[in-house]
Amino acid sequence: MAAVKACNILITGANRGLGLETVKQLSEDSCPKRHIFATCRDPDGPKSKELRELAKKHPSVISIIRLDADDPSSIEESAKKVGSLLGKNGLNLLVNNAAIVATGTAQTSSVEDMKNTFNTNVIGPLLITREYLPYLRTAAKASGTPGMSCNKAAVINISTLGGSLATMPSMYEQFPVLPYCVSKAALNMLSALTAEELKADEILCMALHPGWVKTELGGEKAPLEPKESVEGMLRVIGSLTEKQNGGFLDWNGETVPW
Amino acid sequence: MAAVKACNILITGANRGLGLETVKQLSEDSCPKRHIFATCRDPDGPKSKELRELAKKHPSVISIIRLDADDPSSIEESAKKVGSLLGKNGLNLLVNNAAIVATGTAQTSSVEDMKNTFNTNVIGPLLITREYLPYLRTAAKASGTPGMSCNKAAVINISTLGGSLATMPSMYEQFPVLPYCVSKAALNMLSALTAEELKADEILCMALHPGWVKTELGGEKAPLEPKESVEGMLRVIGSLTEKQNGGFLDWNGETVPW
Repeated sequence: MAAVKACNILITGANRGLGLETVKQLSEDSCPKRHIFATCRDPDGPKSKELRELAKKHPSVISIIRLDADDPSSIEESAKKVGSLLGKNGLNLLVNNAAIVATGTAQTSSVEDMKNTFNTNVIGPLLITREYLPYLRTAAKASGTPGMSCNKAAVINISTLGGSLATMPSMYEQFPVLPYCVSKAALNMLSALTAEELKADEILCMALHPGWVKTELGGEKAPLEPKESVEGMLRVIGSLTEKQNGGFLDWNGETVPW
Repeated sequence: MAAVKACNILITGANRGLGLETVKQLSEDSCPKRHIFATCRDPDGPKSKELRELAKKHPSVISIIRLDADDPSSIEESAKKVGSLLGKNGLNLLVNNAAIVATGTAQTSSVEDMKNTFNTNVIGPLLITREYLPYLRTAAKASGTPGMSCNKAAVINISTLGGSLATMPSMYEQFPVLPYCVSKAALNMLSALTAEELKADEILCMALHPGWVKTELGGEKAPLEPKESVEGMLRVIGSLTEKQNGGFLDWNGETVPW
């Protein structure tokens, strides 16, 4: 059971893998007045079938919204749509989960893969956080409680151990995914600076490593099931306070070295 | 006096600031058989006048080569030119110094600044290292000594404390340069992974923080003169062994936290 009590939640990349599992667990939670904005690139496409079925089961809880993290105009449009659905309410929790992977080494990574991973995994979360900031501020102001929490207003950037400068080099031979790792180290800096910038608004921001999970992205060899990873992440998200603002934790709540 | 004994050295962004000072100190050093490939975007332009004058003073030591870190074809062309000048000799030391700064916060940074800083400060060093790798390998093989050093074969990526995830958030209010910091955290990951990848070839790679220096980039308030910073960096570069491979040091040789 998720410990997240946030009312209005937006998750990007919600049509598969960890994003879909997060929507599933949050929609089955018995939290009253919850609304989940489940965003993905192609809501009507075959890759969003499971999400559409899930939304049919919880029509009052889940709204599917089109958002492509690599397309600034789609980010703007999504924010307008979500804003009209929120009305006077704020957004409590934004989960920047959408990401792409590209394999390659210093000798083989293509310029295109370097640019695409940076655009989707770094510029995407930057623009999404910026567009949704007015709604996050509304939620922070409306909360009435001091301090920070994910039930008040928070941005969670889904990162990876592969973005850890202290850890990744020793894993590089097994995981030659340089464009992905470079983009995630960049995302971690974005998270740390965003946290610093938004703390005056009492909006929490941090980076979260979901573990190595059996998803399309993580592959078959991964030791963790999406269910286990998301249960852990939601426990961690639910427990965050201003003490963890700007930090980098894993799905167990352990600090990941930068 | 620089402790660097490397023969063939290439420095990007060599027409001003720390790059120009590095060329100056290395060309005044009494190291025999030294050759410096001083690269910049616009060798014939007004911003390269000082470099041209320096090269006139040391015509047998300095070759000015056109290289724009943001233009893959100019990187390829420069490598062909340098290759023909090197002949059968290898390149001992590659200093990826060229970089651009852009100011901005999570709320104000433009997509263009995010992309431009990433292209020049991350994709640039990636492609430059790749294009010059055959010459670095030639130098490593020709050296005849075991282990790693900058006199044998090395890639030094000029980074910044602003790319330190552990340190930058506390400096962010004073230095709101988010696109720059994000690109330098990404460069640090590139350095760490390149070091891991090239260690089998005994080519050293690391990231170096030059200090906060009075340059066009550092501004007037900076406490360090370019001369002092470059003297320190050259001492550090000259002292590197395989123990520092993949690391992040400052101009005093102190480890900078990731």
